[in-house]
Amino acid sequence: MNHLQLFESIKEKRSFLCVGLDTEIEKIPSFLNKEKDPVFEFNRRIIDATHKYTVAYKPNMAFYECRGASGWTSLEATVRYIKKKHPELFVIADAKRGDIGNTSKMYAKAFLENLPFDAVTVAPYMGEDSVTPFLSYEGKWVVLLALTSNKGADDFQYHNEDGIKLFERVLSVSQKWGTIDNLMYVVGATRAEMIRDIRKIVPDHFLLVPGVGAQGGSLAEVAKYGLNGKCGLLVNSSRGIIFADSSEKFDKVAGGKAKEMQLEMEAYLLERNLI
Amino acid sequence: MNHLQLFESIKEKRSFLCVGLDTEIEKIPSFLNKEKDPVFEFNRRIIDATHKYTVAYKPNMAFYECRGASGWTSLEATVRYIKKKHPELFVIADAKRGDIGNTSKMYAKAFLENLPFDAVTVAPYMGEDSVTPFLSYEGKWVVLLALTSNKGADDFQYHNEDGIKLFERVLSVSQKWGTIDNLMYVVGATRAEMIRDIRKIVPDHFLLVPGVGAQGGSLAEVAKYGLNGKCGLLVNSSRGIIFADSSEKFDKVAGGKAKEMQLEMEAYLLERNLI
Repeated sequence: MNHLQLFESIKEKRSFLCVGLDTEIEKIPSFLNKEKDPVFEFNRRIIDATHKYTVAYKPNMAFYECRGASGWTSLEATVRYIKKKHPELFVIADAKRGDIGNTSKMYAKAFLENLPFDAVTVAPYMGEDSVTPFLSYEGKWVVLLALTSNKGADDFQYHNEDGIKLFERVLSVSQKWGTIDNLMYVVGATRAEMIRDIRKIVPDHFLLVPGVGAQGGSLAEVAKYGLNGKCGLLVNSSRGIIFADSSEKFDKVAGGKAKEMQLEMEAYLLERNLI
Repeated sequence: MNHLQLFESIKEKRSFLCVGLDTEIEKIPSFLNKEKDPVFEFNRRIIDATHKYTVAYKPNMAFYECRGASGWTSLEATVRYIKKKHPELFVIADAKRGDIGNTSKMYAKAFLENLPFDAVTVAPYMGEDSVTPFLSYEGKWVVLLALTSNKGADDFQYHNEDGIKLFERVLSVSQKWGTIDNLMYVVGATRAEMIRDIRKIVPDHFLLVPGVGAQGGSLAEVAKYGLNGKCGLLVNSSRGIIFADSSEKFDKVAGGKAKEMQLEMEAYLLERNLI
């Protein structure tokens, strides 16, 4: 998928929502525990209830890895289910990987070849050769951490050399490694005021924006500063959608929450004449 | 395990060697393919042949993840085998994880609670709340990336604010998060000349040093600049040991290579009167 195809998908859905499948087994409704794979069953029902309102899904690997081999089985079933039923949806492995070249190549194989993910989140600390192995798959993407949504972002990401903060250096240096068709950036919604400055460095790249909802970021602010001529945004919500309800109708409630966000996003897209 | 116990283990083995179990399935001797779990069988034989000469093992997650659920099964069998046969050995999950707090907590659970690892490598980009969840397990360690062994380390790790390079800031800021009993740092052997400066910031912390052997780092240089009064070093070798031979006697050859390194390390320990 290239950036124009992603924009087409956004226009069709009238949404730039990404649903985070951070499926903590302790938090799923207890009636699902009788299922063979409760986590997959939970994800399947969330996907069935929300796919009309979203252009992307983002399972976070930590919530699967903490269950070992059986977690990987749930993850694999989930990704294959999405791509089989809705091949147009963009599926991101939120893995935040990054290692020396020959090792990153193995991570890339894990997510982009052996599993049908469209993208992987990657941490930039180890530089170019830790990132480029993920960029060697045609039509697949790297989502590189730039300015994250958590408090700890202050510790190193603002480290400032001659007026250039570390996250700004990550944005400018990494642009040489990929294109607007295979490289996007994580920018936290809790840092919405920074998105205006970030757009000066990466006007055309897609940004993946976590932190709306449970983490306190504002969708209105993110849209205001982040939207570009091809939308250029994927805004993620995880807990605010998937764990909005814990009864037997959790999926319907999740669908309702996703629809609320879709409608708000539609309004912003209309305001900018993007649809 | 605390740093004094690790030093005791080093004195007993007369070695500060860590063997990297970067077990690429395509590289293991073909006669092992008849085994039920060839990767575990390979690791088991490597461990049996090398454990006398080493104080630590470090499986790199990428080489297991790229085989999905079955890779995790091999990983789990490997770690449990080491801890059952040789509980005194220090086992590091080379995972380079790091995410927002509630997510890092899940990664910590995956490696330090559900699997019996002693330590996890963590990437510092996302700051304090991405690292501290790994430090909440008594006797377990974070191995934080500081200055890595790859070429891409030049891209961001030397970013310089008022004379303080990013990796130096990582070293000084992160010291507040843990102690010399639960926090060590990755410093690449290919940057051995920097270890002298690094020792000024972290005189007492253990350093995990990859990059000797296949990546070109020198053990002599690492020992010269890195050894402290409690040894303070774990030097990793992966490919140079585990893939030194691909015949039926691969394990004996690996044992020989490990012994060579142990003997060299013993000489450095004697030279410093540490044993």
